[in-house]
Amino acid sequence: MPTVDICLSPELLHLHDLSNSSVVVIDILRASSCMVTALASDVASIRPVRKVEECISYKEKGYLIAAERDGKKVEGFDLGNSPFSYMSAELKGKKVALTTTNGTQAIKMSQATAKEVLVGAFLNKKSLGDYLLRSPNDVLLLCSGWKGQVNIEDTLFAGALLHYLSPQKKYNADAALLAKNLYEQYQNNLMAIVSQSSHVQRLNNLGIEKDILFCLEENRYEVLTKMQGDELVKI
Amino acid sequence: MPTVDICLSPELLHLHDLSNSSVVVIDILRASSCMVTALASDVASIRPVRKVEECISYKEKGYLIAAERDGKKVEGFDLGNSPFSYMSAELKGKKVALTTTNGTQAIKMSQATAKEVLVGAFLNKKSLGDYLLRSPNDVLLLCSGWKGQVNIEDTLFAGALLHYLSPQKKYNADAALLAKNLYEQYQNNLMAIVSQSSHVQRLNNLGIEKDILFCLEENRYEVLTKMQGDELVKI
Repeated sequence: MPTVDICLSPELLHLHDLSNSSVVVIDILRASSCMVTALASDVASIRPVRKVEECISYKEKGYLIAAERDGKKVEGFDLGNSPFSYMSAELKGKKVALTTTNGTQAIKMSQATAKEVLVGAFLNKKSLGDYLLRSPNDVLLLCSGWKGQVNIEDTLFAGALLHYLSPQKKYNADAALLAKNLYEQYQNNLMAIVSQSSHVQRLNNLGIEKDILFCLEENRYEVLTKMQGDELVKI
Repeated sequence: MPTVDICLSPELLHLHDLSNSSVVVIDILRASSCMVTALASDVASIRPVRKVEECISYKEKGYLIAAERDGKKVEGFDLGNSPFSYMSAELKGKKVALTTTNGTQAIKMSQATAKEVLVGAFLNKKSLGDYLLRSPNDVLLLCSGWKGQVNIEDTLFAGALLHYLSPQKKYNADAALLAKNLYEQYQNNLMAIVSQSSHVQRLNNLGIEKDILFCLEENRYEVLTKMQGDELVKI
């Protein structure tokens, strides 16, 4: 039976063998929520990029460029890291190059050895879950965290997806049990725990409560987002 | 105000600055529980050792030697990793050299940079908590985990200790919130979550349910266990 496991931080990724795994990269606040929103809103593709300087270089290749560091849009870029900015009709059909503090780094890391890399958010949970249930692959849910540290919101979504996937995909590890338990405790009021998280404390200072509520909305979009080569696309 | 934080795996220890910290090493099943039991039972000292071969070399220096790998006592050693084996009157005043899969490794790692290293278990929670509350140091609760992976029982005890220390010690990080939340959810029935853990599944196969129940007992011993030089002693 295929297994499902959770990696609570990219710093623990080396403990996992990804050769037979679909990796789901999770960065709820807000990179993976932005990516799902953008592709659901008919952005053509998103190219995750590690460095700010590298991202700038895509401007002359016809991309819109997007960058977030420490929760804020980097000056001079077309887009930042708010999902609402990715819904604009002007973005339809455009290619976006994006770099963020955690999420895009986790995508690049897992791409090195994973069988395939998907991007997940509460916004597309069911579409993603149904795809994974149909797949014979093992699944690794990779939480992007915050600069290597474990965070609540990514753990919570990993637990939500695991709750959806089990018992059809078997889990053994305690990280999976921890995340699933967290989601099952708070599934009727996600904000009750997310509001206590360090990330929300940081983001609240940036005045983006609306973003947080949006990123916790389940199944708003029926869209599956997957890396094909170096770009994330809707399939 | 001094802070308290949690490190869910030794693989994440490099993310923490330990220079002003009391580090509490946690390996509930069963290394830290054994160490606390041994010192409470008047074993003179415990020398944590990384390797099985190195541990053997202490035999000729007059130590009793103890080794566990993959949950089992290593053949040829005087002692394994069951707390009951450390209560014997014959051990009084003796020095023990001990190597285990996770806990002794975590002690050696944290000793490199921490201000001081303590060892904690449910068995001595209050003694340890009261000491930490009197101390001006920051506190890092280091979960030994299982071969780098996060585990439930160490996270649960870290949460228990954090519950005891806050609000007098401030916590910010999500790992701390996650652990504290877990403990508060299960504090009246720790076995309800520990019985689902991967470690207990492994240990149950070894027939040591009695050990597990013992290791979850809170405040059985009034003892504080601290590294002094290369040996863990009762202070």
